Amino acid sequence: MTPDDLTPFLNVANMMADAARCVVRPWFRSSVAVIDKADQSPVTLADRTAERVMRAILSERLPGHGVFGEEFGLENENASYRWLLDPVDGTRSFVTGRPLFGTLIALLKNGVPVLGIIDQPVTEERWVGVSGQPTRFSSRFGGLAGTRACLELGQAELSCTSPEMLESAPHEGWKTLKKRAKRMTWGGDCYAYGLLALGQIDIIAECDMNPWDWAALVPVIEGAGGRITAWDGSPLHAEGDRTVLAVGDASLHSAAVQALATRP
Amino acid sequence: MTPDDLTPFLNVANMMADAARCVVRPWFRSSVAVIDKADQSPVTLADRTAERVMRAILSERLPGHGVFGEEFGLENENASYRWLLDPVDGTRSFVTGRPLFGTLIALLKNGVPVLGIIDQPVTEERWVGVSGQPTRFSSRFGGLAGTRACLELGQAELSCTSPEMLESAPHEGWKTLKKRAKRMTWGGDCYAYGLLALGQIDIIAECDMNPWDWAALVPVIEGAGGRITAWDGSPLHAEGDRTVLAVGDASLHSAAVQALATRP
Repeated sequence: MTPDDLTPFLNVANMMADAARCVVRPWFRSSVAVIDKADQSPVTLADRTAERVMRAILSERLPGHGVFGEEFGLENENASYRWLLDPVDGTRSFVTGRPLFGTLIALLKNGVPVLGIIDQPVTEERWVGVSGQPTRFSSRFGGLAGTRACLELGQAELSCTSPEMLESAPHEGWKTLKKRAKRMTWGGDCYAYGLLALGQIDIIAECDMNPWDWAALVPVIEGAGGRITAWDGSPLHAEGDRTVLAVGDASLHSAAVQALATRP
Repeated sequence: MTPDDLTPFLNVANMMADAARCVVRPWFRSSVAVIDKADQSPVTLADRTAERVMRAILSERLPGHGVFGEEFGLENENASYRWLLDPVDGTRSFVTGRPLFGTLIALLKNGVPVLGIIDQPVTEERWVGVSGQPTRFSSRFGGLAGTRACLELGQAELSCTSPEMLESAPHEGWKTLKKRAKRMTWGGDCYAYGLLALGQIDIIAECDMNPWDWAALVPVIEGAGGRITAWDGSPLHAEGDRTVLAVGDASLHSAAVQALATRP
């Protein structure tokens, strides 16, 4: 497939991201008292409504394609093209008013991510990755798509969403990586991968990740010059992978894999 | 002093925040390779230049006032009015491209904060607190100034900039607070206090804080209906206090102080 073949799909993906922005944004920082029932929280309402809206666009424009989203399950499961939708990645950022959550839209062809969008509905920043093409980024805040050079682990800015996430890691190799890296920063969910694709962060190591959490990141990171795999260095697979390692400079990859495999 | 007396000072504070935005913003996400020398990093250049610009405005408009900033020390130390300037609070956010750092501007009268600004130069969000007045907030992202009701610790959204910060705490009472709160989120520096003033977060407990880190927060939090003290519940003092506890609902304060005083 040549890159041009994906253009009509990219147009639909951008249309979905635009629509999700409109749906999600009014719920952000909405004045609602602390609510216990998860199904009535602003973030759940935003998530569910945005998934419905994106599915409606897909069923109109690309009715033969498969779709998976957390709220409404899988449709057209035998289609070779499948969309993975995550309207609000970064629930904690959303519920505390931090504009660092994101809408993730991925297109997989026979299980391989070929198109990915990371969109921040509030700041209106968007990363677009299409396999075989350079990643594109639009923002009024500045920043250029493209990872930065970083040849040594000891120079690398490491990032992860939260220490709580790493507590569920399969093993404690992340502590070794943290020790060998220059510095660790916390927070960001998908937004941090976007920052890696802008050359602001060098390594991200996370776990407890579902395919809809990482599929959209793959074309964005790779198109920016980086590399993204499981912690053991193997390619990410839609079935089963829970750990994710992203590096901006591909030459850091083997040292990061080795650190993650080493007991602290 | 009536609130009106501070209006001319507030105009100067806003002028300084506007100027700091212009100076800081071009350094954000600037494409500079990983630099070792701290004194050549974009964040240091942003910090230093913005402090110079703010001092120039003060010396022109309010030449009799005292000024303290980290980079260029103390001027007019015997003045009853003293400004505390922190152009880039949240260095790690800045250097990783997260638009959650802030410019802090505080005015103290005889050591007591009477005016505070939290400004995010990139998102162009600004919180303005003046003692005796309701906090004002301007943003294109939504959100209204005013803390939210939260009567029980078990319902409270807790926040802190990083686990590394808490490792330097005078004792481990924060672990008790974390256990008793509903949930912990990380990241944000001064921006998180702004979110507490919007009713998005209920409690913040931090340590290793300098007066220029917390002085601007006091009028913002109090004017939004919250309370801010040291961990032991005593008022913050310009000499010596390193721990900061902020609560959105003042009725949470005693339970938070008690938790912080309890070994985990």
